[in-house]
Amino acid sequence: MREVFQQELREVQERLVEIAALVAVSIDNATRAFNESNVSLAETVIADDEKIDVAALELDELAINILARQQPVARDLRIVVSALRISASLERMGDMAEHIAQLARYRFPDKVVPKSLRGTFAELGALDVAIANKLVELLTTEDTRLAEEIRNDDDRIDALHLSVFDKVLGETWKGAAVDTVDATLASRYHERFADHAVSIAKKVQYLATGDWVVASS
Amino acid sequence: MREVFQQELREVQERLVEIAALVAVSIDNATRAFNESNVSLAETVIADDEKIDVAALELDELAINILARQQPVARDLRIVVSALRISASLERMGDMAEHIAQLARYRFPDKVVPKSLRGTFAELGALDVAIANKLVELLTTEDTRLAEEIRNDDDRIDALHLSVFDKVLGETWKGAAVDTVDATLASRYHERFADHAVSIAKKVQYLATGDWVVASS
Repeated sequence: MREVFQQELREVQERLVEIAALVAVSIDNATRAFNESNVSLAETVIADDEKIDVAALELDELAINILARQQPVARDLRIVVSALRISASLERMGDMAEHIAQLARYRFPDKVVPKSLRGTFAELGALDVAIANKLVELLTTEDTRLAEEIRNDDDRIDALHLSVFDKVLGETWKGAAVDTVDATLASRYHERFADHAVSIAKKVQYLATGDWVVASS
Repeated sequence: MREVFQQELREVQERLVEIAALVAVSIDNATRAFNESNVSLAETVIADDEKIDVAALELDELAINILARQQPVARDLRIVVSALRISASLERMGDMAEHIAQLARYRFPDKVVPKSLRGTFAELGALDVAIANKLVELLTTEDTRLAEEIRNDDDRIDALHLSVFDKVLGETWKGAAVDTVDATLASRYHERFADHAVSIAKKVQYLATGDWVVASS
């Protein structure tokens, strides 16, 4: 019974890694679609989001099945509940990649953001891709140094996100309203993508160290 | 044992209702702060978000404890897992109310949106408040007609959300970049607030009808 359970936990972990890998491909495609106005890549991301949603739903069903059949307690129970939450966050990361791709598709053949912001969004995109790849590795290896790296990358993303508003609200901003809307939304999507990754990284860190967030903290 | 379990499920439900009631107060305060540039009301919402977060965290701990001690299966297990998810959505709804309040505080003593959009945002705010109150009632009574109403309100919110973009991107828009940014973000927060409510309403509906979303659907 115990061995079956350990095998099932491994399957949960493998599926989380698979979903994270799908998300990593999608954010890579989405940022390229966004930066290069590549509409067919944007459409790939939009189509792939369905696969991420289905994979997350299947993982949830597996996790609930394990809860029902194996009745785990203590740390094992935390692992299964955490898997449900990580799955929800990965699903939202997929949505953010899709939203970024949708902006690219709406504005095609124009670029989504004006020249003065392209460097910022190139960096935001590269950081989101790096975070997604680190997340795949973190879920595979549970090496908590990666969780720290993800948090540091997120700090940089938050700073870039604020810098987008500084630019858009600054006196030198010449963008039309459509540029302002797109920059606002795109920056928010990039920032939320990273927030979800941080939230997953924290959960993996707690699981690895046993340092639980309890109600009183 | 069974009786203890039923008592615990009732406590889970009562706590969900309490958190939803806190969210309803916060979105009411947030929309008033937003529409009337009331900075002290905005600060109340921002301070109250911490209470919502703590209440959601405590409920999660209770739900995980119930899983560990009572080992529920079948429908009972679904109820406890759904409670965890509903709690996460309520926590996010609190965040959206806080974000709306923050916009009001940032722009104080100015109003957040220019005159031409105030009617739209008044309606968005009123719909979010109505949805939050219906959610409290839905969680209390499990009357699934309320779930339908929430979905209908959300359809109207989606239409208003799109109309904000139409206005901001239209030829008559005279707003400065700051107005464009604020309208974009505020509209998105109102829309996300309602999305989370719909997601909760669907879960309550499934629990009430047994009509589960399975992996293959």
